Amino acid sequence: MDTPHHTAGFALDACLEADSEHVMWLSLCELRLMNDSRWPWLILIPQRQKITEVHDLTPLDQTMLTFETNMVAEGLKKLTACEKINTGALGNIVRQLHVHVIARNTGDPAWPGPVWGHGLREPYRREALHEFSARVQTAL
Amino acid sequence: MDTPHHTAGFALDACLEADSEHVMWLSLCELRLMNDSRWPWLILIPQRQKITEVHDLTPLDQTMLTFETNMVAEGLKKLTACEKINTGALGNIVRQLHVHVIARNTGDPAWPGPVWGHGLREPYRREALHEFSARVQTAL
Repeated sequence: MDTPHHTAGFALDACLEADSEHVMWLSLCELRLMNDSRWPWLILIPQRQKITEVHDLTPLDQTMLTFETNMVAEGLKKLTACEKINTGALGNIVRQLHVHVIARNTGDPAWPGPVWGHGLREPYRREALHEFSARVQTAL
Repeated sequence: MDTPHHTAGFALDACLEADSEHVMWLSLCELRLMNDSRWPWLILIPQRQKITEVHDLTPLDQTMLTFETNMVAEGLKKLTACEKINTGALGNIVRQLHVHVIARNTGDPAWPGPVWGHGLREPYRREALHEFSARVQTAL
């Protein structure tokens, strides 16, 4: 599945592209790693144009998104041995539909609050970013 | 569907019970209204015991949760004419699996940040809480 899908009309939002790194292509979604070393933080972006709400996807796409999100969540939990997974679809700033999957632990920088909007992003060193991305690919 | 389901072993977390009001029973989930007048804020709680992560539900339950969440999200968006729906499953404090569905608008108290952990809950007046709950029931 790890070859680019050039779904008609799909283009990644510029902010998502700038703040995260491509990990792999799933069937419906592009999987990306948020370039913020404070938390292991993955983002799924359904390859559908002009969709801002999950409920605007077709029922089949909703089901695909659910399974891909949960596969990623389970993989990230195993990989990181985290205490809790947080998932969310907010889109208040970036309207292109995207789903966050984040590994959380007691005492992490925003615990027990949400990560969104918390302080400033702390980018990985380049090698650490690629290394973690490779570990995610292996875990899935 | 609006009769209590006494699913074996299902008991609502005490914090969820204290902070929110019963709206109705869906097939898998209990639907509750967060008693916080700052945002129209609904919570779905799958009637399954000892589940803390969505990916620990069976595939059928995952699919049911997706459809019930999206039905609620679509209904809440129509009812409130809000700008954006936020959905999330965090559970850092309350571990019983629950999914938030919140109506958001530019300029609301936490915009564009997340609502979780933002300031103090502002309960509805009792009549306003019941009135909004009734409007949600009608919208679904």
